[in-house]
Amino acid sequence: MQLEHDFFPFLERLAAASAAAILPHFRTDHAVESKLAGGFDPVTIADRAGEAAMRALINETYPDHGILGEEYGLERTDAEHVWVLDPIDGTRAFITGLPTWGTLIGLKTAGRPCLGMMVQPYVGERYCGDTQSAWYKGPLGERRLTARPCRALKDAVVLTTSPRILQEVEREAYDRLEAQARLARYGTDCYAYCMVAAGHADLVVETGLQPYDVVALAPIVEGAGGVMTTWTGGSPVDGGRIVASGDPHLHDIVLTELSRVPV
Amino acid sequence: MQLEHDFFPFLERLAAASAAAILPHFRTDHAVESKLAGGFDPVTIADRAGEAAMRALINETYPDHGILGEEYGLERTDAEHVWVLDPIDGTRAFITGLPTWGTLIGLKTAGRPCLGMMVQPYVGERYCGDTQSAWYKGPLGERRLTARPCRALKDAVVLTTSPRILQEVEREAYDRLEAQARLARYGTDCYAYCMVAAGHADLVVETGLQPYDVVALAPIVEGAGGVMTTWTGGSPVDGGRIVASGDPHLHDIVLTELSRVPV
Repeated sequence: MQLEHDFFPFLERLAAASAAAILPHFRTDHAVESKLAGGFDPVTIADRAGEAAMRALINETYPDHGILGEEYGLERTDAEHVWVLDPIDGTRAFITGLPTWGTLIGLKTAGRPCLGMMVQPYVGERYCGDTQSAWYKGPLGERRLTARPCRALKDAVVLTTSPRILQEVEREAYDRLEAQARLARYGTDCYAYCMVAAGHADLVVETGLQPYDVVALAPIVEGAGGVMTTWTGGSPVDGGRIVASGDPHLHDIVLTELSRVPV
Repeated sequence: MQLEHDFFPFLERLAAASAAAILPHFRTDHAVESKLAGGFDPVTIADRAGEAAMRALINETYPDHGILGEEYGLERTDAEHVWVLDPIDGTRAFITGLPTWGTLIGLKTAGRPCLGMMVQPYVGERYCGDTQSAWYKGPLGERRLTARPCRALKDAVVLTTSPRILQEVEREAYDRLEAQARLARYGTDCYAYCMVAAGHADLVVETGLQPYDVVALAPIVEGAGGVMTTWTGGSPVDGGRIVASGDPHLHDIVLTELSRVPV
């Protein structure tokens, strides 16, 4: 029981290296620094340490692979295989001590997200997928991830990090969806996509995402039978406005609403 | 290193009994039922199983103690010692698979919250306090909980479950606070109070709380050096509009704003 992708064992090594670098900084007082002098942009020593550890391992093991990371930018992004890294997705969760941040490790091959993992090393759980299947490993053992059916918006549980970080036209569209849904839950970051893959929620609606926020997650959502696209139905690979659904039928319904939102 | 309260070992037994009843239902498909026919009020089989397990243990061990629980109401609430139970605080987190719900076990003695524990059995961590000291036990070992200093609202990290569940006058007041704060984070439930006690956040502002939402948490916040009251500075024991601060000075500042909000 696991993914058979050639690079899967290496993904596990990256996850372990990142966890070893990050965990000593979780729930300590010295972990917060400010990236921008003018405003509060939470980023941590841990974020940088995690990415540096993963980059070192990639450069040592696959020197011809590319890397795109949140903290240290681009290397060889014209390579066939490009690793896309976000050591701490959910920095607000991290700095407030909540166990709902995650380390995102994705692999793009020939420009397409093909392998991804979300690791929560404090809880000790991971979600991984290769677009064809997806798996959970953690305190509950090892399980195949299967998104659940949900054919109507009125039955959907919708997740988003915060409606307040949306632009006005985006928030209006989100609010229309939320008003029709069964239940909404905020503060979810990368967990939102994994909970859709695991069949505990139906929909994630977000905007302003970066490539390193999505490349690891799309193969998990798709591997569990879900769909993840931009609001206009395009590839999620470059981030931006993103919607993920556990049920492809629900995705079509939601795209009808979201695709009309002006850019 | 631990609380020396006479009832502390019994609290641990209650936590274990509740966890054994609840965990088999976490992240399963059959865990959701609807409490109200008319609307969606998430409550689970697990909630009831957890409370029944704790009630049985209390009635067997301390038949003269009172009990107040979310699911099964009141028993002997004129007793000297009354246990106040919420098996799953954060039902939305629970049903969406997120590991940020918690089991709340509080003890009121002579009408005052004197001992409390928040347990997250999936993560394997617990926060407990007796108003004089507070402790964490979990993946990072065993630590004393100490709230952090924060003397100005502009430096504060504020937590709340969702601004959208506030009444209009309450939301206006909350929004004024959030606009002045350094950072806000939603979706936190009982974790919010524990993160303030642990020194990872500074402020929790909520409304519409029940006694079983607060009795377990007040001794933890206070034991870590923080303050937890109603918006007008009264005892939090009956729930309602609640504010918790890690720094008593910040609490005074915030009460000045919140105490003016019309009932």
